[in-house]
Amino acid sequence: MASNGTNGTNGAEKPAHRFDPNFTQAVIDNMGPKTTPRNRQVLGALVRHLHDFTREVELTIDEWMAAVHFVNAVGRIYSESKQTRNEAHRICDILGLESLVDEIAHKVISEGDIDPTSSSILGPFWSPNAPFRELGGTIIQDGVPPKGRVTKMHGVIRDMTTGKPIPGAVFDIWQASANGKYDFQDPENQTPNNLRGKFRADEEGRYWFYCLHPTAYSLPQDGPSWDLLTLMDRHPMRPAHIHIMVTHENFQGCTTQLYPNDDPWLTTDTVFAVKPDLVVDFKPLEGDDKAVLELEYNVFLAPKGYKGKL
Amino acid sequence: MASNGTNGTNGAEKPAHRFDPNFTQAVIDNMGPKTTPRNRQVLGALVRHLHDFTREVELTIDEWMAAVHFVNAVGRIYSESKQTRNEAHRICDILGLESLVDEIAHKVISEGDIDPTSSSILGPFWSPNAPFRELGGTIIQDGVPPKGRVTKMHGVIRDMTTGKPIPGAVFDIWQASANGKYDFQDPENQTPNNLRGKFRADEEGRYWFYCLHPTAYSLPQDGPSWDLLTLMDRHPMRPAHIHIMVTHENFQGCTTQLYPNDDPWLTTDTVFAVKPDLVVDFKPLEGDDKAVLELEYNVFLAPKGYKGKL
Repeated sequence: MASNGTNGTNGAEKPAHRFDPNFTQAVIDNMGPKTTPRNRQVLGALVRHLHDFTREVELTIDEWMAAVHFVNAVGRIYSESKQTRNEAHRICDILGLESLVDEIAHKVISEGDIDPTSSSILGPFWSPNAPFRELGGTIIQDGVPPKGRVTKMHGVIRDMTTGKPIPGAVFDIWQASANGKYDFQDPENQTPNNLRGKFRADEEGRYWFYCLHPTAYSLPQDGPSWDLLTLMDRHPMRPAHIHIMVTHENFQGCTTQLYPNDDPWLTTDTVFAVKPDLVVDFKPLEGDDKAVLELEYNVFLAPKGYKGKL
Repeated sequence: MASNGTNGTNGAEKPAHRFDPNFTQAVIDNMGPKTTPRNRQVLGALVRHLHDFTREVELTIDEWMAAVHFVNAVGRIYSESKQTRNEAHRICDILGLESLVDEIAHKVISEGDIDPTSSSILGPFWSPNAPFRELGGTIIQDGVPPKGRVTKMHGVIRDMTTGKPIPGAVFDIWQASANGKYDFQDPENQTPNNLRGKFRADEEGRYWFYCLHPTAYSLPQDGPSWDLLTLMDRHPMRPAHIHIMVTHENFQGCTTQLYPNDDPWLTTDTVFAVKPDLVVDFKPLEGDDKAVLELEYNVFLAPKGYKGKL
């Protein structure tokens, strides 16, 4: 969407401000002939929107310098943490950017009655090394933590266009423990791959296993991302969630997150990753001595190449 | 300027895209009641323009991740150079942001015939420690470098509203040497405050001293700013320039840069700091055994409190 809703440049419009009307286009036009068309589009739009923002709020020199220091501080934490603390990624999440990019990448609107399961952001905690486990097994490798509530999770993975099950689909799940930490972050309490696992759906597309009811947690309460949250008077909480990634060679994979419907942070998730079809109902379970709760969740995948309505 | 030219929110408009029309407003509305009005305005506009940009170009996940790595790399150089190499500042310059912020801060349009001297960006090389020197003295402290052309610079500092001279105005000048480096950057060849100095105008508002004809130079040809220039197929050159900062307690100070009118990089300055009234004519000088060139430059300051036409 151009700033004026028309042709995407400032050059052709009469600007609604008192500043040099040719400046922004001059910056854009300084790009040389060897810029790729995509770089020209993306960087040209970046300059235009950055300048429009700056003129709209009449950004002061002090505010701009504060932003320069902020960007340097973001990268400094990355460097000083030996690349383990990616504040630039977290800042994007706080501004809704990762969720927006995810929507743009995965938006599929069905031509039929059933939409595919909504995607949500991957986040920084997925691991390519999660082990395959047997159907009916558990991802609770290190025993049930204090306050942990074991849940039997199950469902069917189906083709959204036909409703037919997808045998052999892979259901990859990862979640934080009841202390709000993933295995990476919590080596004192968790062994690698605790609360992670992959399950292969059976001939009827079914999966089932044991996991934990998830626990809400806070983003770090220091550093540039915390400074930004403070400026915005926002809380640092993510609602409780389970991450899943469901894949099959003939279908478009779905990476998403599931949220208990009674979580207090659902409507103000600090990374804006909640969507209505991802809010789920954990029910009391009786007659299973391994679990106290049950979660049924059925997944719908779009076939590869399916475009739907644009 | 709002994305639709009206009320500055996405909530009230029908979006010209296929994505969730409520998402951006939800992110903005997550700010709490204790955000200051200015932070709400600036950060709200930042989110809106960032999202509009992202939807307009349909930014891909790979492109977004490249941007995350880029921001981390910017701060890493700052950290690893022990805060001496401010790439975040340089990236802003390359995108025209510092020049735009400078224009916003200093825009004064005269109600009379004479505009004040245009401002330009301060850049990273001004020093608060430059010494006062005598009128008629020189800032070439370490001798004339190879290829250096000594210039007698002179002019009158006047009140733009009355045309009267401003006795006692301070004319602060700094410039790179003929190798394109400032004293900070070149300790092997230059002592501190070489090619820097302050001069106090005489009773008729006049200043005069000796300096060098300036030399064009390149921004660093490595690091994130160089990567960005390469993506945009742009050269890294700044046109030759002299920095000046002219101040007096009763007038609005003017920080600016002066450019020789025969410089090949004038129209494509990589930081976009050239304005027409800052382009000057160095003339051959005869009869002065200290200099081969002459530069006359008269400065016009606006009185403190003068607003002009908005």
